[in-house]
Amino acid sequence: MIAMADTAPAPKGTITSRGVGCLDDVASACAAAEAAFPVYRQTDSEQRAVFLECIAEKIVALGEPLIDVVMRESGLPRARLEGERGRTVGQLRLFAEELRSGRWQGIRVDPALPDRTPLPRPDLRMRKIPVGPVAVFGASNFPLAFSTAGGDTASALAAGCPVIVKGHPAHPETSLLVAGVVEAAVKACDLPDGVFSHIAGPGNAVGEALVSDPRIAAVGFTGSRAGGLAILKRAQVRPVPIPVYAEMSSINPVILLPNILDERAAALGTEFVASLTMGAGQFCTNPGLVVAVDGPGLDDFIAAAISAMVGVEAAPMLSEGISEAYRRGVEALAARSDVRTIARGRTGEGPRSYPAALFSTDAASFLADATLGDEVFGATSLIVRCRDESDLAAVLVALEGQLTATLHMAETDLSLAARLMPVLELKAGRILVNGWPTGVEVSHAMVHGGPYPASSDARSTSVGSLAIDRFLRPVCYQNLPEALLPREAGWSSDLRR
Amino acid sequence: MIAMADTAPAPKGTITSRGVGCLDDVASACAAAEAAFPVYRQTDSEQRAVFLECIAEKIVALGEPLIDVVMRESGLPRARLEGERGRTVGQLRLFAEELRSGRWQGIRVDPALPDRTPLPRPDLRMRKIPVGPVAVFGASNFPLAFSTAGGDTASALAAGCPVIVKGHPAHPETSLLVAGVVEAAVKACDLPDGVFSHIAGPGNAVGEALVSDPRIAAVGFTGSRAGGLAILKRAQVRPVPIPVYAEMSSINPVILLPNILDERAAALGTEFVASLTMGAGQFCTNPGLVVAVDGPGLDDFIAAAISAMVGVEAAPMLSEGISEAYRRGVEALAARSDVRTIARGRTGEGPRSYPAALFSTDAASFLADATLGDEVFGATSLIVRCRDESDLAAVLVALEGQLTATLHMAETDLSLAARLMPVLELKAGRILVNGWPTGVEVSHAMVHGGPYPASSDARSTSVGSLAIDRFLRPVCYQNLPEALLPREAGWSSDLRR
Repeated sequence: MIAMADTAPAPKGTITSRGVGCLDDVASACAAAEAAFPVYRQTDSEQRAVFLECIAEKIVALGEPLIDVVMRESGLPRARLEGERGRTVGQLRLFAEELRSGRWQGIRVDPALPDRTPLPRPDLRMRKIPVGPVAVFGASNFPLAFSTAGGDTASALAAGCPVIVKGHPAHPETSLLVAGVVEAAVKACDLPDGVFSHIAGPGNAVGEALVSDPRIAAVGFTGSRAGGLAILKRAQVRPVPIPVYAEMSSINPVILLPNILDERAAALGTEFVASLTMGAGQFCTNPGLVVAVDGPGLDDFIAAAISAMVGVEAAPMLSEGISEAYRRGVEALAARSDVRTIARGRTGEGPRSYPAALFSTDAASFLADATLGDEVFGATSLIVRCRDESDLAAVLVALEGQLTATLHMAETDLSLAARLMPVLELKAGRILVNGWPTGVEVSHAMVHGGPYPASSDARSTSVGSLAIDRFLRPVCYQNLPEALLPREAGWSSDLRR
Repeated sequence: MIAMADTAPAPKGTITSRGVGCLDDVASACAAAEAAFPVYRQTDSEQRAVFLECIAEKIVALGEPLIDVVMRESGLPRARLEGERGRTVGQLRLFAEELRSGRWQGIRVDPALPDRTPLPRPDLRMRKIPVGPVAVFGASNFPLAFSTAGGDTASALAAGCPVIVKGHPAHPETSLLVAGVVEAAVKACDLPDGVFSHIAGPGNAVGEALVSDPRIAAVGFTGSRAGGLAILKRAQVRPVPIPVYAEMSSINPVILLPNILDERAAALGTEFVASLTMGAGQFCTNPGLVVAVDGPGLDDFIAAAISAMVGVEAAPMLSEGISEAYRRGVEALAARSDVRTIARGRTGEGPRSYPAALFSTDAASFLADATLGDEVFGATSLIVRCRDESDLAAVLVALEGQLTATLHMAETDLSLAARLMPVLELKAGRILVNGWPTGVEVSHAMVHGGPYPASSDARSTSVGSLAIDRFLRPVCYQNLPEALLPREAGWSSDLRR
């Protein structure tokens, strides 16, 4: 079901509503999802794998016209969007693989022990089943991979949960095009209509109604801290609590250890600016904080970063709102007496283009004001100069939860790195060595999440195959006759433990 | 650390406080837990397994004096408490086994693909790590197995999380004795003091302070719906959200299918009353609701239940409060015009003894008033007489979330059972056939949890080895040199996927 409140033409066979009608759309979509759930959750892994692959094929089949629309709406360059399309399709296929493997079910079997004393043990089997209809709030910065048919939708559909997407207002046509494709896949696979719904339209009222609806069993969100917290707060006043997975805010600290700075400070400075300014810095994993001990190595890093930075031309940001928030964030930092502006990128020509910015401060100032650790979404980063290793450790300890933490280190930095590891593990969902946090692999071992405020629920990931687990819950079957046991589970396979 | 606010003598070397001092104890315990966490979480699986086994040994070594104290405080009979001690010790040993297996870490490895185009894949490894200090609120009805060194404490300690137990006021001496044992095991295993703390004393203020403390990373609770919701609400106003696992309320529907009633109605009636009245009905899994289609079979079941019921003498309940709530609940049902009192047990001689009670109503009445599905904790159950199978299905659909749902069925009931299964799966954490819900196996495939209000978080279990997962979160390591990778994980074993 596709519902819209704007004036774009509705694809044939979809529900359209305008203005306040959107709240009716929420109710209709939830009713359809509720009706679809009993049927959809009983599809087997193979059926859902085929469905996900069908969505993937149909996204590819949209061809260049899809890329053209996303470019127009997001301002992102073609190559990046072609890559993102590949990622979106890859995610859907990864979940198809996960479904076929059967591992997602978390099968456990305790065989009956009829002769045990003093009491026999009954046959006990556990599997995981889907929680129910899921509301998905996509992100503006990945109009394909984290939006309508993005990671949350793919993992929820894989789990057996109907999905209701609240279309992102920054890319309404993209969202509608992709929703049309999912809708077509639902029909092609002969699934109930309510397996997927898309609701566009004026933001907050629709979103709040969705999160509050008693038929919604879980929420996936990617976006700002304010947006995530609003959803979390709304969910908390529900009579029945539900899981809310909000991936929100991270400054992704990059720690430069002393010996690697001796070895390759200049190269690191250049690489850093490339990671920072790629895609106008609009990544959740953008390196917004650099922490290092003062010295000639750090000076060289900064010099290289400055010279790379001045060559970077501002690119159009995703939306007016994001560009304005970025400008305000940068200007606020520039106006502070305890922060030094050390480089600005070049002004861009397009709309919503505001130059990249690099700042520095010292550890004492950073530790004195927690707001210096707030995310400014865009191509800006703060370098924290530390007097010594203990300063550096103190800065890391003071950080909020993060999606990632990165160590740049030489072999000879190992002992310091080993001392910092326990701190980083408690702060971040992913720890990298000698790489850059932008670029999140879609795989089995990936964790894209982390302690608050990186996410509202650190027990999970929003990227990679483990994400399916967010929309499942365990059920135990005790002493069930063979004929009554769910057939799909693969009780007798080597999945049992 | 052991803190108390009552007048019982404090074991040597523990912190004692009285009256309002308890809030200071919360702060001290949280500070100690925070200090212990970095050390404790770095212990390896074997060290924690030995620690859990040490607690188990020391509980056993308390011998009969422990049982005497629990009997005096709880009113529960010796044989039951000896069994519960075995269960408590068995839980600790199960988690030791789980630790040694390494499975709890959820290891996943995506090996590097250096030659992949267009971009190489870095080496990616995932493991799960403990979330931090856990607050445990034990239950009154299992003074050993669900209290101070009960399931929540065992699973959190196994995960590598320090534990702060809020001692249950219904069994303060038991709690203190067991806390002393855990404390001794902490010392014997050379672990930091703050790995375990026990705080006794006046209830709500201490509990609220614990749940609100920023150093607490998760909460485990077993008890009433009102208590669980109060904790959930308190946790929701924390600036940083944390997982709250409250196991609360369940009436554990037992569905008697037509053909099994033809076969063995009388035997079922007798078995039912035994399950219902065991331990004065003070089990989370007590069968508080029976649903069946009207007919001679159901009449026979009821007749047998009545004749069993009248022979049941009321046993002392756990506390004055529980006994009073039970009496009020039973009297409220007895006073209703849409509910019929069909049997009462015999009056007991001890204190806090109020007779068992059996009620019946019809499906229409049950469907008309949701409060008939509220739990009355104790030896009472409501039989819902249905006109037909569709009535029966409607009653099941109307139920709130449950810990368990039980089907009694003959082979010839299979097709009806199969139709009901999807409803039961969405309502309950455990589905049983031809057994009784009381008696929860401690094993790998057990699920003791379920949709709200059975628990506040249906994604987990509070019994069985999967419970360790509640206190863990995943971390991904990208491109880490061998020397920096956590040693314990077993990356190269067959746990990898």
